[in-house]
Amino acid sequence: MEENNHTKAVCVYSRMSYGDQPISDFLDNVASERVTPAGGSAAALVGAIGTALCEMACLHTIGKNGYEDVEEEIAEIHEALLKQRSFLLDLADKDAEVVDELLVAYRDGSDQTVAMKKATGVPLTIAEACLPVIEHATVVSKKGNENAVPDAGTGSFLVYSALQASIFTVQSNLDQLSDSEFTKEMETRAAAIEQSAELEFERVLSNIE
Amino acid sequence: MEENNHTKAVCVYSRMSYGDQPISDFLDNVASERVTPAGGSAAALVGAIGTALCEMACLHTIGKNGYEDVEEEIAEIHEALLKQRSFLLDLADKDAEVVDELLVAYRDGSDQTVAMKKATGVPLTIAEACLPVIEHATVVSKKGNENAVPDAGTGSFLVYSALQASIFTVQSNLDQLSDSEFTKEMETRAAAIEQSAELEFERVLSNIE
Repeated sequence: MEENNHTKAVCVYSRMSYGDQPISDFLDNVASERVTPAGGSAAALVGAIGTALCEMACLHTIGKNGYEDVEEEIAEIHEALLKQRSFLLDLADKDAEVVDELLVAYRDGSDQTVAMKKATGVPLTIAEACLPVIEHATVVSKKGNENAVPDAGTGSFLVYSALQASIFTVQSNLDQLSDSEFTKEMETRAAAIEQSAELEFERVLSNIE
Repeated sequence: MEENNHTKAVCVYSRMSYGDQPISDFLDNVASERVTPAGGSAAALVGAIGTALCEMACLHTIGKNGYEDVEEEIAEIHEALLKQRSFLLDLADKDAEVVDELLVAYRDGSDQTVAMKKATGVPLTIAEACLPVIEHATVVSKKGNENAVPDAGTGSFLVYSALQASIFTVQSNLDQLSDSEFTKEMETRAAAIEQSAELEFERVLSNIE
Protein backbone atom coordinates (compact mmCIF):
# COMPACT_ATOMS: atom_id res chain seq x y z
CA MET A 1 0.00 0.00 0.00
CA GLU A 2 2.75 2.40 1.01
CA GLU A 3 4.54 1.75 -2.24
CA ASN A 4 1.34 2.38 -4.19
CA ASN A 5 0.78 5.70 -2.48
CA HIS A 6 4.36 6.67 -3.13
CA THR A 7 3.97 5.81 -6.84
CA LYS A 8 0.85 7.95 -7.05
CA ALA A 9 2.55 10.87 -5.34
CA VAL A 10 5.41 10.71 -7.81
CA CYS A 11 2.95 10.49 -10.70
CA VAL A 12 1.07 13.57 -9.54
CA TYR A 13 3.78 15.88 -8.31
CA SER A 14 7.08 15.33 -10.08
CA ARG A 15 6.12 16.05 -13.68
CA MET A 16 8.51 18.01 -15.86
CA SER A 17 7.18 21.52 -16.41
CA TYR A 18 5.56 21.66 -19.84
CA GLY A 19 7.65 24.73 -20.64
CA ASP A 20 10.77 22.54 -20.61
CA GLN A 21 9.21 19.83 -22.79
CA PRO A 22 9.89 19.60 -26.53
CA ILE A 23 6.76 20.51 -28.50
CA SER A 24 6.47 17.08 -30.19
CA ASP A 25 6.63 15.31 -26.82
CA PHE A 26 3.89 17.55 -25.42
CA LEU A 27 1.72 16.85 -28.47
CA ASP A 28 2.37 13.09 -28.23
CA ASN A 29 1.37 13.18 -24.57
CA VAL A 30 -1.83 15.12 -25.29
CA ALA A 31 -2.67 12.67 -28.10
CA SER A 32 -1.97 9.59 -25.98
CA GLU A 33 -4.39 7.54 -23.91
CA ARG A 34 -2.96 9.26 -20.81
CA VAL A 35 -5.51 11.68 -19.40
CA THR A 36 -2.97 14.51 -18.83
CA PRO A 37 -2.05 16.85 -20.38
CA ALA A 38 -5.69 17.37 -21.30
CA GLY A 39 -7.89 20.23 -22.47
CA GLY A 40 -7.00 22.65 -19.67
CA SER A 41 -3.24 22.43 -20.25
CA ALA A 42 -3.75 22.60 -24.02
CA ALA A 43 -5.90 25.73 -23.70
CA ALA A 44 -3.42 27.38 -21.31
CA LEU A 45 -0.61 26.74 -23.78
CA VAL A 46 -2.65 28.16 -26.65
CA GLY A 47 -3.34 31.22 -24.48
CA ALA A 48 0.42 31.56 -23.94
CA ILE A 49 1.11 31.26 -27.69
CA GLY A 50 -1.42 33.99 -28.48
CA THR A 51 0.01 36.18 -25.72
CA ALA A 52 3.51 35.77 -27.18
CA LEU A 53 2.25 37.05 -30.55
CA CYS A 54 0.79 40.14 -28.87
CA GLU A 55 4.13 40.69 -27.12
CA MET A 56 5.91 40.58 -30.48
CA ALA A 57 3.54 43.23 -31.81
CA CYS A 58 4.47 45.44 -28.81
CA LEU A 59 8.20 45.00 -29.45
CA HIS A 60 7.74 46.06 -33.07
CA THR A 61 6.10 49.28 -31.79
CA ILE A 62 8.39 50.29 -28.91
CA GLY A 63 11.21 52.57 -30.12
CA LYS A 64 9.89 52.73 -33.69
CA ASN A 65 9.53 55.98 -35.64
CA GLY A 66 6.01 57.34 -35.63
CA TYR A 67 4.98 55.49 -32.47
CA GLU A 68 6.66 57.76 -29.88
CA ASP A 69 3.32 58.91 -28.45
CA VAL A 70 2.15 55.40 -27.59
CA GLU A 71 5.54 53.98 -26.60
CA GLU A 72 5.04 54.23 -22.84
CA GLU A 73 1.57 52.68 -22.92
CA ILE A 74 2.70 49.83 -25.19
CA ALA A 75 5.78 49.20 -23.02
CA GLU A 76 3.52 48.80 -19.98
CA ILE A 77 1.27 46.44 -21.91
CA HIS A 78 4.31 44.47 -23.04
CA GLU A 79 5.39 44.01 -19.44
CA ALA A 80 1.89 42.89 -18.42
CA LEU A 81 1.69 40.42 -21.33
CA LEU A 82 5.06 38.90 -20.43
CA LYS A 83 3.80 38.18 -16.89
CA GLN A 84 0.52 36.83 -18.21
CA ARG A 85 2.28 34.41 -20.57
CA SER A 86 4.34 33.07 -17.69
CA PHE A 87 1.18 32.72 -15.58
CA LEU A 88 -0.62 30.83 -18.39
CA LEU A 89 2.31 28.43 -18.77
CA ASP A 90 2.22 27.80 -15.00
CA LEU A 91 -1.51 27.12 -15.29
CA ALA A 92 -0.80 24.47 -17.95
CA ASP A 93 1.22 22.60 -15.31
CA LYS A 94 -1.34 23.33 -12.60
CA ASP A 95 -4.19 21.92 -14.69
CA ALA A 96 -2.40 18.61 -15.20
CA GLU A 97 -1.73 18.48 -11.45
CA VAL A 98 -5.39 18.87 -10.47
CA VAL A 99 -6.63 16.51 -13.20
CA ASP A 100 -4.16 13.88 -11.95
CA GLU A 101 -5.45 14.42 -8.41
CA LEU A 102 -8.97 13.86 -9.70
CA LEU A 103 -7.84 10.61 -11.35
CA VAL A 104 -6.31 9.46 -8.06
CA ALA A 105 -9.64 10.22 -6.34
CA TYR A 106 -11.50 8.17 -9.00
CA ARG A 107 -9.11 5.24 -8.56
CA ASP A 108 -9.22 5.38 -4.76
CA GLY A 109 -13.00 5.49 -4.83
CA SER A 110 -12.70 8.40 -2.36
CA ASP A 111 -14.81 11.56 -2.38
CA GLN A 112 -14.22 13.24 -5.72
CA THR A 113 -16.01 16.50 -4.96
CA VAL A 114 -12.98 18.40 -3.67
CA ALA A 115 -10.80 17.15 -6.54
CA MET A 116 -13.48 18.00 -9.12
CA LYS A 117 -13.84 21.51 -7.70
CA LYS A 118 -10.10 22.06 -8.07
CA ALA A 119 -10.21 20.62 -11.60
CA THR A 120 -12.95 23.15 -12.39
CA GLY A 121 -11.26 26.12 -10.72
CA VAL A 122 -8.08 25.87 -12.78
CA PRO A 123 -9.73 26.15 -16.23
CA LEU A 124 -11.78 29.06 -14.87
CA THR A 125 -8.51 30.71 -13.83
CA ILE A 126 -7.11 30.01 -17.33
CA ALA A 127 -10.12 31.77 -18.88
CA GLU A 128 -9.72 34.66 -16.43
CA ALA A 129 -6.03 34.91 -17.31
CA CYS A 130 -6.82 35.12 -21.04
CA LEU A 131 -9.24 38.05 -20.64
CA PRO A 132 -6.67 40.81 -19.87
CA VAL A 133 -4.59 39.58 -22.82
CA ILE A 134 -7.51 40.25 -25.18
CA GLU A 135 -8.04 43.64 -23.50
CA HIS A 136 -4.38 44.52 -24.08
CA ALA A 137 -4.61 43.22 -27.66
CA THR A 138 -7.40 45.74 -28.26
CA VAL A 139 -4.99 48.57 -27.48
CA VAL A 140 -2.11 47.01 -29.44
CA SER A 141 -4.29 46.42 -32.50
CA LYS A 142 -5.49 50.04 -32.36
CA LYS A 143 -2.27 51.88 -31.54
CA GLY A 144 0.56 49.47 -32.38
CA ASN A 145 2.89 49.43 -35.39
CA GLU A 146 0.62 48.81 -38.37
CA ASN A 147 3.03 46.16 -39.67
CA ALA A 148 2.66 44.21 -36.44
CA VAL A 149 -1.09 44.64 -35.95
CA PRO A 150 -1.83 41.39 -37.86
CA ASP A 151 0.25 39.51 -35.27
CA ALA A 152 -1.83 40.99 -32.45
CA GLY A 153 -4.92 40.01 -34.45
CA THR A 154 -3.74 36.42 -34.92
CA GLY A 155 -2.81 36.27 -31.23
CA SER A 156 -6.30 37.45 -30.27
CA PHE A 157 -8.01 34.69 -32.28
CA LEU A 158 -5.90 32.12 -30.43
CA VAL A 159 -6.28 33.61 -26.94
CA TYR A 160 -10.04 34.03 -27.40
CA SER A 161 -10.38 30.35 -28.35
CA ALA A 162 -8.28 29.37 -25.32
CA LEU A 163 -10.71 31.36 -23.17
CA GLN A 164 -13.77 29.78 -24.80
CA ALA A 165 -12.30 26.28 -24.58
CA SER A 166 -11.57 26.81 -20.88
CA ILE A 167 -15.08 28.02 -20.15
CA PHE A 168 -16.37 24.95 -22.00
CA THR A 169 -14.21 22.74 -19.76
CA VAL A 170 -15.58 24.51 -16.67
CA GLN A 171 -19.14 23.84 -17.84
CA SER A 172 -18.40 20.18 -18.64
CA ASN A 173 -16.94 19.67 -15.17
CA LEU A 174 -19.81 21.46 -13.44
CA ASP A 175 -22.22 18.98 -15.06
CA GLN A 176 -20.58 16.34 -12.87
CA LEU A 177 -21.01 18.24 -9.60
CA SER A 178 -24.13 18.42 -7.44
CA ASP A 179 -23.07 21.35 -5.21
CA SER A 180 -25.52 23.96 -6.48
CA GLU A 181 -23.94 26.87 -4.58
CA PHE A 182 -20.49 26.18 -6.03
CA THR A 183 -21.98 25.58 -9.50
CA LYS A 184 -23.91 28.85 -9.37
CA GLU A 185 -20.84 30.83 -8.30
CA MET A 186 -18.68 29.31 -11.03
CA GLU A 187 -21.36 29.79 -13.71
CA THR A 188 -21.75 33.44 -12.74
CA ARG A 189 -18.01 34.04 -12.96
CA ALA A 190 -17.76 32.11 -16.24
CA ALA A 191 -20.64 34.07 -17.79
CA ALA A 192 -19.04 37.39 -16.77
CA ILE A 193 -15.70 36.40 -18.30
CA GLU A 194 -17.39 35.17 -21.48
CA GLN A 195 -19.43 38.35 -21.88
CA SER A 196 -16.44 40.67 -21.34
CA ALA A 197 -14.29 38.60 -23.69
CA GLU A 198 -16.88 38.63 -26.46
CA LEU A 199 -17.18 42.44 -26.32
CA GLU A 200 -13.41 42.86 -26.18
CA PHE A 201 -12.78 40.44 -29.05
CA GLU A 202 -15.31 42.33 -31.17
CA ARG A 203 -13.24 45.47 -30.53
CA VAL A 204 -10.10 43.69 -31.71
CA LEU A 205 -11.91 42.51 -34.85
CA SER A 206 -13.10 46.04 -35.62
CA ASN A 207 -9.51 47.30 -35.20
CA ILE A 208 -7.96 44.71 -37.51
CA GLU A 209 -10.55 44.64 -40.26
CA MET B 1 29.00 39.71 -50.23
CA GLU B 2 29.49 35.97 -50.55
CA GLU B 3 29.75 35.69 -46.79
CA ASN B 4 26.52 37.67 -46.40
CA ASN B 5 24.67 35.40 -48.78
CA HIS B 6 25.97 32.37 -46.94
CA THR B 7 24.77 33.82 -43.63
CA LYS B 8 21.32 34.40 -45.09
CA ALA B 9 21.13 30.86 -46.45
CA VAL B 10 22.02 29.47 -43.02
CA CYS B 11 19.43 31.74 -41.40
CA VAL B 12 16.68 30.61 -43.73
CA TYR B 13 17.28 26.91 -44.12
CA SER B 14 18.94 25.37 -41.09
CA ARG B 15 16.42 26.11 -38.37
CA MET B 16 15.71 23.46 -35.76
CA SER B 17 12.29 21.92 -36.36
CA TYR B 18 9.83 23.48 -33.94
CA GLY B 19 8.72 20.01 -32.90
CA ASP B 20 12.15 19.48 -31.31
CA GLN B 21 12.13 22.83 -29.52
CA PRO B 22 11.21 23.16 -25.82
CA ILE B 23 7.86 24.95 -25.47
CA SER B 24 9.33 27.90 -23.50
CA ASP B 25 11.98 28.49 -26.18
CA PHE B 26 9.33 28.51 -28.91
CA LEU B 27 7.23 30.99 -26.90
CA ASP B 28 10.27 33.20 -26.23
CA ASN B 29 11.06 33.22 -29.94
CA VAL B 30 7.50 34.10 -30.91
CA ALA B 31 7.50 36.88 -28.30
CA SER B 32 10.87 38.27 -29.41
CA GLU B 33 11.60 41.04 -31.90
CA ARG B 34 12.55 38.33 -34.40
CA VAL B 35 9.92 38.06 -37.10
CA THR B 36 9.79 34.23 -37.07
CA PRO B 37 8.15 32.18 -35.70
CA ALA B 38 5.19 34.42 -36.43
CA GLY B 39 1.42 34.05 -36.75
CA GLY B 40 1.47 31.23 -39.30
CA SER B 41 3.70 28.96 -37.23
CA ALA B 42 1.76 29.82 -34.08
CA ALA B 43 -1.57 28.96 -35.75
CA ALA B 44 -0.19 25.70 -37.18
CA LEU B 45 0.99 24.67 -33.72
CA VAL B 46 -2.38 25.53 -32.20
CA GLY B 47 -3.99 23.41 -34.94
CA ALA B 48 -1.69 20.54 -33.97
CA ILE B 49 -2.57 20.93 -30.27
CA GLY B 50 -6.30 20.81 -31.03
CA THR B 51 -5.79 17.81 -33.31
CA ALA B 52 -3.92 15.99 -30.52
CA LEU B 53 -6.92 16.49 -28.20
CA CYS B 54 -9.24 14.97 -30.82
CA GLU B 55 -6.84 12.02 -31.15
CA MET B 56 -7.02 11.46 -27.40
CA ALA B 57 -10.81 11.40 -27.60
CA CYS B 58 -10.53 8.68 -30.30
CA LEU B 59 -8.18 6.58 -28.15
CA HIS B 60 -10.63 6.73 -25.25
CA THR B 61 -13.30 5.32 -27.59
CA ILE B 62 -11.42 2.55 -29.44
CA GLY B 63 -11.71 -0.77 -27.60
CA LYS B 64 -14.07 0.58 -24.96
CA ASN B 65 -17.27 -1.16 -23.89
CA GLY B 66 -20.36 0.23 -25.55
CA TYR B 67 -18.48 1.71 -28.50
CA GLU B 68 -17.93 -1.49 -30.53
CA ASP B 69 -20.20 -0.28 -33.35
CA VAL B 70 -18.19 2.88 -34.01
CA GLU B 71 -14.75 1.44 -33.29
CA GLU B 72 -13.72 0.98 -36.92
CA GLU B 73 -14.85 4.45 -37.98
CA ILE B 74 -13.13 6.11 -35.00
CA ALA B 75 -9.93 4.12 -35.62
CA GLU B 76 -9.83 5.43 -39.20
CA ILE B 77 -10.41 8.97 -37.96
CA HIS B 78 -7.64 8.51 -35.39
CA GLU B 79 -5.23 7.50 -38.13
CA ALA B 80 -6.23 10.51 -40.25
CA LEU B 81 -5.85 12.91 -37.30
CA LEU B 82 -2.37 11.57 -36.51
CA LYS B 83 -1.26 12.33 -40.07
CA GLN B 84 -2.89 15.75 -39.98
CA ARG B 85 -1.12 16.69 -36.74
CA SER B 86 2.21 15.78 -38.28
CA PHE B 87 1.33 17.82 -41.39
CA LEU B 88 0.38 20.85 -39.27
CA LEU B 89 3.66 20.65 -37.35
CA ASP B 90 5.55 20.53 -40.67
CA LEU B 91 3.58 23.59 -41.78
CA ALA B 92 4.74 25.46 -38.66
CA ASP B 93 8.31 24.99 -39.92
CA LYS B 94 7.33 25.75 -43.50
CA ASP B 95 5.68 29.03 -42.52
CA ALA B 96 8.83 30.28 -40.79
CA GLU B 97 10.83 29.29 -43.88
CA VAL B 98 8.70 31.32 -46.31
CA VAL B 99 8.43 34.31 -43.94
CA ASP B 100 12.24 34.31 -43.63
CA GLU B 101 12.50 34.20 -47.43
CA LEU B 102 10.18 37.21 -47.59
CA LEU B 103 12.42 39.05 -45.12
CA VAL B 104 15.45 38.27 -47.27
CA ALA B 105 13.58 39.69 -50.29
CA TYR B 106 12.75 42.87 -48.31
CA ARG B 107 16.40 43.29 -47.25
CA ASP B 108 17.74 42.62 -50.74
CA GLY B 109 15.31 45.11 -52.22
CA SER B 110 14.53 42.40 -54.80
CA ASP B 111 11.07 41.55 -56.16
CA GLN B 112 8.98 40.53 -53.20
CA THR B 113 5.97 39.26 -55.14
CA VAL B 114 7.06 35.63 -55.40
CA ALA B 115 8.10 35.54 -51.73
CA MET B 116 4.84 37.19 -50.63
CA LYS B 117 2.80 34.68 -52.64
CA LYS B 118 4.60 31.81 -50.90
CA ALA B 119 4.08 33.52 -47.51
CA THR B 120 0.36 33.70 -48.34
CA GLY B 121 0.08 30.14 -49.67
CA VAL B 122 1.38 28.52 -46.49
CA PRO B 123 -1.22 30.00 -44.08
CA LEU B 124 -3.91 29.08 -46.62
CA THR B 125 -2.59 25.50 -46.51
CA ILE B 126 -2.65 25.65 -42.69
CA ALA B 127 -6.32 26.68 -42.80
CA GLU B 128 -7.05 23.91 -45.34
CA ALA B 129 -5.27 21.40 -43.10
CA CYS B 130 -7.42 22.41 -40.08
CA LEU B 131 -10.73 21.87 -41.91
CA PRO B 132 -10.69 18.03 -42.03
CA VAL B 133 -9.76 17.99 -38.33
CA ILE B 134 -12.96 19.89 -37.50
CA GLU B 135 -14.91 17.52 -39.79
CA HIS B 136 -13.48 14.51 -37.96
CA ALA B 137 -14.18 16.20 -34.61
CA THR B 138 -17.84 16.38 -35.58
CA VAL B 139 -17.96 12.58 -35.82
CA VAL B 140 -15.91 12.09 -32.63
CA SER B 141 -18.09 14.50 -30.65
CA LYS B 142 -21.21 12.69 -31.87
CA LYS B 143 -20.14 9.05 -31.63
CA GLY B 144 -17.09 9.01 -29.34
CA ASN B 145 -16.85 7.97 -25.69
CA GLU B 146 -19.01 10.44 -23.82
CA ASN B 147 -16.26 10.94 -21.21
CA ALA B 148 -13.87 12.04 -23.95
CA VAL B 149 -16.28 14.19 -25.96
CA PRO B 150 -15.32 17.34 -23.99
CA ASP B 151 -11.71 16.86 -25.18
CA ALA B 152 -12.87 16.74 -28.80
CA GLY B 153 -14.92 19.86 -28.08
CA THR B 154 -11.96 21.72 -26.58
CA GLY B 155 -9.80 20.58 -29.49
CA SER B 156 -12.36 21.94 -31.95
CA PHE B 157 -12.36 25.40 -30.37
CA LEU B 158 -8.58 25.51 -30.75
CA VAL B 159 -8.43 24.11 -34.30
CA TYR B 160 -11.21 26.43 -35.47
CA SER B 161 -9.31 29.45 -34.13
CA ALA B 162 -6.14 28.23 -35.85
CA LEU B 163 -8.12 28.09 -39.10
CA GLN B 164 -9.61 31.56 -38.59
CA ALA B 165 -6.24 33.04 -37.61
CA SER B 166 -4.66 31.54 -40.74
CA ILE B 167 -7.37 32.93 -43.02
CA PHE B 168 -6.82 36.32 -41.35
CA THR B 169 -3.09 36.06 -42.13
CA VAL B 170 -3.91 35.21 -45.77
CA GLN B 171 -6.12 38.30 -46.03
CA SER B 172 -3.50 40.54 -44.38
CA ASN B 173 -0.85 39.34 -46.85
CA LEU B 174 -3.15 39.69 -49.87
CA ASP B 175 -3.60 43.38 -48.96
CA GLN B 176 0.08 43.81 -49.83
CA LEU B 177 -0.18 42.18 -53.27
CA SER B 178 -1.35 43.79 -56.49
CA ASP B 179 -1.77 40.60 -58.56
CA SER B 180 -5.57 40.60 -58.84
CA GLU B 181 -5.80 37.13 -60.42
CA PHE B 182 -3.77 35.54 -57.60
CA THR B 183 -5.69 37.55 -54.99
CA LYS B 184 -9.04 36.49 -56.42
CA GLU B 185 -8.07 32.82 -56.48
CA MET B 186 -6.80 32.92 -52.90
CA GLU B 187 -9.85 34.82 -51.65
CA THR B 188 -12.17 32.30 -53.28
CA ARG B 189 -10.35 29.38 -51.68
CA ALA B 190 -10.21 31.16 -48.31
CA ALA B 191 -13.94 31.95 -48.40
CA ALA B 192 -14.78 28.33 -49.22
CA ILE B 193 -12.66 27.02 -46.33
CA GLU B 194 -14.15 29.58 -43.95
CA GLN B 195 -17.72 28.74 -44.93
CA SER B 196 -17.23 24.97 -44.61
CA ALA B 197 -15.44 25.40 -41.29
CA GLU B 198 -18.18 27.60 -39.84
CA LEU B 199 -20.86 25.04 -40.74
CA GLU B 200 -18.78 22.16 -39.40
CA PHE B 201 -17.91 23.95 -36.17
CA GLU B 202 -21.60 24.67 -35.57
CA ARG B 203 -22.17 20.91 -35.86
CA VAL B 204 -19.50 20.25 -33.25
CA LEU B 205 -21.10 22.85 -30.94
CA SER B 206 -24.52 21.25 -31.32
CA ASN B 207 -23.00 17.85 -30.46
CA ILE B 208 -21.21 19.03 -27.33
CA GLU B 209 -23.87 21.29 -25.88
